[in-house]
Amino acid sequence: MQIEHLLEAVRQELPAPRFEHTLRVQKLAVKFAQRMGIDKDRTSIAAILHDYCKFWPKEKLVSWIRKYKLPDDLLDYHSELWHAPVGAEVAARHFGIMDEEILQAIRYHTTGRPCMSTLEKIIFLADLLEPGRRFPGVEELRSDADRDIDWAVWKALDHTICYLVERRQKIYPLTMLARNYFLEIAREKDLREEST
Amino acid sequence: MQIEHLLEAVRQELPAPRFEHTLRVQKLAVKFAQRMGIDKDRTSIAAILHDYCKFWPKEKLVSWIRKYKLPDDLLDYHSELWHAPVGAEVAARHFGIMDEEILQAIRYHTTGRPCMSTLEKIIFLADLLEPGRRFPGVEELRSDADRDIDWAVWKALDHTICYLVERRQKIYPLTMLARNYFLEIAREKDLREEST
Repeated sequence: MQIEHLLEAVRQELPAPRFEHTLRVQKLAVKFAQRMGIDKDRTSIAAILHDYCKFWPKEKLVSWIRKYKLPDDLLDYHSELWHAPVGAEVAARHFGIMDEEILQAIRYHTTGRPCMSTLEKIIFLADLLEPGRRFPGVEELRSDADRDIDWAVWKALDHTICYLVERRQKIYPLTMLARNYFLEIAREKDLREEST
Repeated sequence: MQIEHLLEAVRQELPAPRFEHTLRVQKLAVKFAQRMGIDKDRTSIAAILHDYCKFWPKEKLVSWIRKYKLPDDLLDYHSELWHAPVGAEVAARHFGIMDEEILQAIRYHTTGRPCMSTLEKIIFLADLLEPGRRFPGVEELRSDADRDIDWAVWKALDHTICYLVERRQKIYPLTMLARNYFLEIAREKDLREEST
């Protein structure tokens, strides 16, 4: 019931193609969640709300970042990053979501961060890999995600960093710290596998 | 006179090929310095000493980092980074170098950092671009350095980041902050040129 209500609210807020993207993210996220033993409804809520503020005017995003004291170093980076922390704030304030892990999954779905929870990793990857996404290397990332979620998060963050270098855009420090973190996790897993 | 003495000390400390590298770095750094109106002798001292500790055993580098309270977050990153801050410490303690700008040029020649001085940028670039260096893209970086030193530092840091991604190594946060910083500097210069 809550899910239907949220879907309707998001449909009002997003242009049709972005709403379709949201539905595909939800579907893929639920698939990952089922594989990882994560609650399907909590996953759906995070997926449905992750892009709620994606089409808000920049001024509105900036005013939320200032008003609710969200990390304002974000304002020195690409505006593409702003909708995620504002989205988490809206999820809490407008939709009454109190589940901190859902809020974190919305908050960090664009930048990533070290120590992401399984739900955070699922939303981060589903957003990047839903079937509507087309970019060089996406198929390899999809195979990675089918094999090991930490490995896939590392490779996805590598992809993001290379994309930002290529596009001459600044790299948000948390994204690079997340990349270093998941590189180490993937490497440790790899070493464990080699030693078994 | 001091320069001859330092050269002899470095010759004792480095294998012949690395000493040859040091001489090439000195030569290129002095070429950059002359173009930028930077003192030739200070540039030479920084260049000659920049790799003094390059072949020290890891344990010795770690013990210096601990003993002299150098940034020990470095120990979580590739050991390749350790010789630079230790080199600056040795320059001060063994060779009596008191010129903070020379010390900074040695200290940050591997990682880079935001707000590098002209001398720091010169040593950073000369180390990467001396004629003995062979890697894909080096010629383009050499042309960049001939045109604009900030632009070249940015592109060199981009190169470092892509190299680390490719080699599956962690990126030192300061290197990424330096890259973001020099990207902005280069972009501002570019905008100024467009508007003139």
